Amino acid sequence: MSHLFTIGPVEMFPETLELGGKQVPYFRNDEFSEVVFSVCDGLKRLLFNENGEIILLTSSGTGAMEATVLNCFSKEDKLIVIEGGSFGHRFAQICEVHDIPYKSVKFENETLTKDMIEEAIGDEKFTGLLVNLDETSNGQLYDIEMLSQVCCEHDLVFVVDAISAFLADEINMDKYGIDAVILSSQKALSLAPGLSIVSLSEKMLKRVEVIDSKTLYFDFKNHLKNAERGQTPFTPAVRIIIELENMVKRLEKKGIDNIIKETNELAVYFRKRIKEIGLDYPTYPLSNAVTPVIFPDENADVIYQKLIDEYGFTVNPNGGDLGKKMFRVSHVGKHSIDDIEELVVAISNLINNK
Amino acid sequence: MSHLFTIGPVEMFPETLELGGKQVPYFRNDEFSEVVFSVCDGLKRLLFNENGEIILLTSSGTGAMEATVLNCFSKEDKLIVIEGGSFGHRFAQICEVHDIPYKSVKFENETLTKDMIEEAIGDEKFTGLLVNLDETSNGQLYDIEMLSQVCCEHDLVFVVDAISAFLADEINMDKYGIDAVILSSQKALSLAPGLSIVSLSEKMLKRVEVIDSKTLYFDFKNHLKNAERGQTPFTPAVRIIIELENMVKRLEKKGIDNIIKETNELAVYFRKRIKEIGLDYPTYPLSNAVTPVIFPDENADVIYQKLIDEYGFTVNPNGGDLGKKMFRVSHVGKHSIDDIEELVVAISNLINNK
Repeated sequence: MSHLFTIGPVEMFPETLELGGKQVPYFRNDEFSEVVFSVCDGLKRLLFNENGEIILLTSSGTGAMEATVLNCFSKEDKLIVIEGGSFGHRFAQICEVHDIPYKSVKFENETLTKDMIEEAIGDEKFTGLLVNLDETSNGQLYDIEMLSQVCCEHDLVFVVDAISAFLADEINMDKYGIDAVILSSQKALSLAPGLSIVSLSEKMLKRVEVIDSKTLYFDFKNHLKNAERGQTPFTPAVRIIIELENMVKRLEKKGIDNIIKETNELAVYFRKRIKEIGLDYPTYPLSNAVTPVIFPDENADVIYQKLIDEYGFTVNPNGGDLGKKMFRVSHVGKHSIDDIEELVVAISNLINNK
Repeated sequence: MSHLFTIGPVEMFPETLELGGKQVPYFRNDEFSEVVFSVCDGLKRLLFNENGEIILLTSSGTGAMEATVLNCFSKEDKLIVIEGGSFGHRFAQICEVHDIPYKSVKFENETLTKDMIEEAIGDEKFTGLLVNLDETSNGQLYDIEMLSQVCCEHDLVFVVDAISAFLADEINMDKYGIDAVILSSQKALSLAPGLSIVSLSEKMLKRVEVIDSKTLYFDFKNHLKNAERGQTPFTPAVRIIIELENMVKRLEKKGIDNIIKETNELAVYFRKRIKEIGLDYPTYPLSNAVTPVIFPDENADVIYQKLIDEYGFTVNPNGGDLGKKMFRVSHVGKHSIDDIEELVVAISNLINNK
């Protein structure tokens, strides 16, 4: 088994694996409702959304992104989509499929600024903004304070895909006036893929009430009604929810600030070492969750494969044109400075043909 | 931990639990593509759909039901929905949400006949039929041969939700001209909930090509394109797919006829014993997957709770008005005649206040 430095799935914790190996219980009962209540209450605290609600969806993160757009917006809306990579593009595709008017702020390899968004807005009236706080495809972390300010000034509903940023960078719904946060089980939560989470602010709950969403499976109104009794409308990913209860307790015990600090330390250490061995990373602001490593010799794809074959380390390859230029290394999941140092040494050996 | 006689989750096999306790691997590589190919090829054989394709969806069965309707039909269609219980009603709701014209064949506690469907069709032209082969809410198994004949005579696209019937009753796509079969991981496949499967016939693939489905997450065209390289468009329920590979191999080794025969033997034994202890079951045809047990003293809810508290056996309660009249016992998952006999003795003791 390879040691994972990928962004999802990530290295899982022994307690999670122990729960994963257990018989899945029947769930239409009070015992499981208690698990759901515990998960939702904990997530509300971790996201600073104590007056809002949590929706548990059995889907990948993309399902939750589409569900959020479907339940929170309609054809009467007009959205700004921050499209700085393939995950931003996915939000644009979702608007496209459901005929929801939008305008993209499109860019590549440069830092997103307030001016870029203001220019896109111009004199037009928009109603919401969709952003992947960490654009996982290239690791850029957008400035949440700036985004929050834009949303406040233009009265925009603020939707944050924090799938890879959660637990790595600050996500505070109250402080930044975020109306929806989207999470997924297989990133820093370090669980198996298959469960996604949408956290809705009190304000957004009022919006959801009046939107006529054309979906049965992803209908938030039905999910919210069932959540009142600690249940979901349809059979959920019971096993992951049980693992999530354990993880949320662990995270609350540790404290959100400490977790972000630890992830930051791993990222800072890795970035320092990468420079020392003659490699580089992008100059735009990076999420603590992931470092794109730039190979001046354009042999990232070769090193990627050798890391697996010779060291048993799996990092995240980049697709398409970027495949030779860079790969990405995650700093979430069960990792220590020692693990990262081992990876750096392995990369160093390989680029020096040792 | 309770022993499960529920219809899903069911009692899981030790090999599955062992796989469930393992680190989830990275999946965007050839190793995982091989797993997906192996799963899809095996499922095509088990469903007798070797010229068709398999789609793996990270969702509950309801997600797959909605995805199938969205990708296989449009507002130009007109569907017959067999609505003999809450799962039939769900198909009707899906058509409702997506404005797909339909007519329900509605009934309760009676055997579905060809005349009932013919009466609904009358002189109108319909294009498809949606049916839950085993209406899990009350256990009725519809006559697949009759349904197949109706579809053939009226040139209807034939969609079968076999979520609870698969491996318990005969589902042969070639023989019965079925165009889509919907399955879910937590029924007779005895895996954790969170993965659903849609098997499309060669004929249905042509239909999917031309339908403009308004969904990104559930877009079959995108799923089929990715399936060519053994992948899914979005992060799948990797862990369940790995467990499914193991299960499909196990099922193929055993042979589909033997599996159905074994499930039938468990069902027949249980039904004989239930009568012997003074209880009853419905007179309409039943799936081998589940037996609704009728309590003449209308104390099903009391016995349900005592089975858990005093014996550690969980059966499937019925909701609403039926809650006191009946509960349901499943015959799928890891079960032996001895397990069933223990359950019968427990029920017998409880109804006799022993």
